[in-house]
Amino acid sequence: MSVGVQGLYHPHTTMDISAVNALPYEDFVNIFGNVVEKCPIITAAVWSMRPFASLSALEAAISEFIDALPESGKEGILRCHPDLASRDLHGGTLTRESREEQARAGLDALSSAEASRMAQLNVEYKERFKFPFVICARMNDKANILRQLSERCGNERAAERARGIEEVKKICRLRLQGLVLTDAPNKL
Amino acid sequence: MSVGVQGLYHPHTTMDISAVNALPYEDFVNIFGNVVEKCPIITAAVWSMRPFASLSALEAAISEFIDALPESGKEGILRCHPDLASRDLHGGTLTRESREEQARAGLDALSSAEASRMAQLNVEYKERFKFPFVICARMNDKANILRQLSERCGNERAAERARGIEEVKKICRLRLQGLVLTDAPNKL
Repeated sequence: MSVGVQGLYHPHTTMDISAVNALPYEDFVNIFGNVVEKCPIITAAVWSMRPFASLSALEAAISEFIDALPESGKEGILRCHPDLASRDLHGGTLTRESREEQARAGLDALSSAEASRMAQLNVEYKERFKFPFVICARMNDKANILRQLSERCGNERAAERARGIEEVKKICRLRLQGLVLTDAPNKL
Repeated sequence: MSVGVQGLYHPHTTMDISAVNALPYEDFVNIFGNVVEKCPIITAAVWSMRPFASLSALEAAISEFIDALPESGKEGILRCHPDLASRDLHGGTLTRESREEQARAGLDALSSAEASRMAQLNVEYKERFKFPFVICARMNDKANILRQLSERCGNERAAERARGIEEVKKICRLRLQGLVLTDAPNKL
């Protein structure tokens, strides 16, 4: 019951870290390949660093891999993310994780005014930064997301790239916590 | 008619480099996202380096991005590739590109003896190297692929990782040539 976050507990797939460490790379990539959206290469790379002492160690390995990428690579990660509350949310082309996270934040049920404001700000953001607005939807509601999107449009590009990557890591942490037993229960 | 390679010319999508340079990142990633198998992050990253003077320049940008990755990242790329001639080839879970390339090499029509030899060698290879055997199927036929798989099982790990990445780049070049007008026609 202390496992999982915000109700996204997956009883059939949640495993402890020793089970994670025993996975062949194919299974590891199948299970964790989308903890960074559409970037299975990152998951497949950190498999080289097993065994992981804990879920935190796995998360840290992913984080370090991302940090070591050139700035273009970080922008590449951001560009693998969908626009929030875009038509894709209803069109079935999103990854399961992204669809669930956006729906949970209320982004699948925007008023017409909210939807057009979101679309307009997404365009503005992308024109300015050349990558999409990324935010951890599960840590925000739709009002907060709209406010932050508007505010972040005013940032400098380098700061915004770093901020987007911070959000990628938050998303990654919550996706991992839905798949791996958190460390705390093992210490009880 | 000088465009495209080995019959994989795609008349509806082949474009010249100036059209490529004009693409917003979403379209660029949609079109070129799988030139390195299941690694759209690489495509999305090199978009930062546009405009490209030629198809070769785009190819070089991809190649340099790959070369700059840590060894774990290169292994990650290899692990995003499917086993050759695996059951996935008939199961419909492969990317379109991989399915077409493998079929062209005759890997979808192996004899029972060939199929079991291939499966056995794939297992042996993966146990030894912890990543799958990668080869540019369009530059080889099934007999040649089986022979090389058998031979490469005897290599050292670092050499084999480098060899696999060389093959990734050959696959990437042919996929690019199916999508972008080669440079030669522009010089005529």
